[in-house]
Amino acid sequence: MTKILAITGGVGGAKLALGLSKVLNEDEVLFLVNTGDDFQHLGLEISPDVDSLLYALSEKNNPELGWGRKDESWNFISTLEELGEDAWFRLGDRDLALHTIRTQKLARGQSIQQVTDELSAALGIRHRIAPMSQSKISTIVETPDGKLGFQEYFVREKCEPKVVNFQFQGIETAEPNPVVVSWLKQCDGVVICPSNPYVSVDPILKVPGLKELLRSKPVIAVSPIVGGLAIKGPAAKMMKELGVPPSPIAVSDHYGDLLSGFVLDKTDGDQANDISIPSIVTQTVMVTLQDRIDLAKQCVRFLEELA
Amino acid sequence: MTKILAITGGVGGAKLALGLSKVLNEDEVLFLVNTGDDFQHLGLEISPDVDSLLYALSEKNNPELGWGRKDESWNFISTLEELGEDAWFRLGDRDLALHTIRTQKLARGQSIQQVTDELSAALGIRHRIAPMSQSKISTIVETPDGKLGFQEYFVREKCEPKVVNFQFQGIETAEPNPVVVSWLKQCDGVVICPSNPYVSVDPILKVPGLKELLRSKPVIAVSPIVGGLAIKGPAAKMMKELGVPPSPIAVSDHYGDLLSGFVLDKTDGDQANDISIPSIVTQTVMVTLQDRIDLAKQCVRFLEELA
Repeated sequence: MTKILAITGGVGGAKLALGLSKVLNEDEVLFLVNTGDDFQHLGLEISPDVDSLLYALSEKNNPELGWGRKDESWNFISTLEELGEDAWFRLGDRDLALHTIRTQKLARGQSIQQVTDELSAALGIRHRIAPMSQSKISTIVETPDGKLGFQEYFVREKCEPKVVNFQFQGIETAEPNPVVVSWLKQCDGVVICPSNPYVSVDPILKVPGLKELLRSKPVIAVSPIVGGLAIKGPAAKMMKELGVPPSPIAVSDHYGDLLSGFVLDKTDGDQANDISIPSIVTQTVMVTLQDRIDLAKQCVRFLEELA
Repeated sequence: MTKILAITGGVGGAKLALGLSKVLNEDEVLFLVNTGDDFQHLGLEISPDVDSLLYALSEKNNPELGWGRKDESWNFISTLEELGEDAWFRLGDRDLALHTIRTQKLARGQSIQQVTDELSAALGIRHRIAPMSQSKISTIVETPDGKLGFQEYFVREKCEPKVVNFQFQGIETAEPNPVVVSWLKQCDGVVICPSNPYVSVDPILKVPGLKELLRSKPVIAVSPIVGGLAIKGPAAKMMKELGVPPSPIAVSDHYGDLLSGFVLDKTDGDQANDISIPSIVTQTVMVTLQDRIDLAKQCVRFLEELA
């Protein structure tokens, strides 16, 4: 039996997570997810990356939009807008139920892990999702015009401001989620799913003590950059703004000696030889469910070879 | 110019309120509304009677349901139910926007009056709505099996438990809304709209000092009981359970010497002679907008005669 920790952020990572959930049982994979994007909005506790994973694993995600829930309606947010309120964060009517339940449970004193477990159960998800920490950590995007909360940058400003740096407020005093620590003691390897290295994966790696625990295992990463572009989201744009060429090699370099292996798309096959660690070239672009399953299988096999 | 205070509770009262808003300008009528039904649910501050009035005056009420907003959808509440949560209070997706905005404004420290004014403005309502008090007052229904919060009795238990008595928690220390007090100084008369005497109008009349202020004016009430039944809601059922015959006379007796005049439906015309105060018999059942306007005109004329 292989026991894997899968690190994931938004929608790209959640695609591979679904694949992994189809090829591994619930005692074979734990999903470690970023909570740096979490924020409070309209009185609701919103955890975008946890929710992307909840919807992906329960197959309730919205394939047309690429975010949120399927079969969604928008009457709440359009009424909010008609009444003159801020409507930049597009909360769907169905999606709202999830945030309302989370907010109520947290207000009653439940931990982020408990709430995530209960939401997973309610959605019929068998695999466990572990938020990176039980503490509140907030990703701040530094731009030439000042600091923005991550959702302000990502949704309200549509990733248009140039990024200069990132801060993870609250991370110094945060502790890794004990569920992750205990899983890591028994697990055989780690897959970093194709998520944004700066704002999805780095917050996880910077939770004090977590990177050191990961180092004792073979760690592979799947490039979120394909053909110089990010499949989804601002990763490539951020890399350019930070003076880094948007390439798989740069992603591999970003993770540095944490990695034992790297997975890049066949589009970038010519770059494989320039990567100094073991790598595999395959189709990382996941359109169908079968694509997700195939990539998951290859990641598991690659990790087994490295172990 | 006639200056009127209109006392109103739920949907029945709101129908006459709309009529009054069509025949009187915003400096001629103030709507004094019950907030005893207000409660917190799913983290939201919900004011059912204020909302019934907001939706009626902005003509956004749902005529099919008889409560809530028109063009409503129910994806939030049905998703909440799918996720295993309590869904007995049917919050529509559009309606939810109003509660969310109220909750946010109250959390920022705005008063109930300020919030109501801003919601009115957002809905394009010119007439002013004045909640009975700025303090929190909660109607409790005493039943043989114990006490129920009003919405638990009204919505969750569908008015099935027998009523024994009512309590208005917090009323002893409440003060009347200053907007109402100042309006009463200049106004010529008061209309008690056809709302439930026990749970819509009594909480208002029991706000310390308010009844005494009303006594200095001609006060008329429109019977919410027609032909032994309530047009909507549990008024007739409550009367029977309290040992009172559900009749216009009983309603008139309930308000006692506060009243200068009484308005009863033509269905009950034969009872007019048994009422000891001046009364008019007319059509009080309001189906069309014209019905609302006609009854409003008659109430204004009746008050002018009594003044």
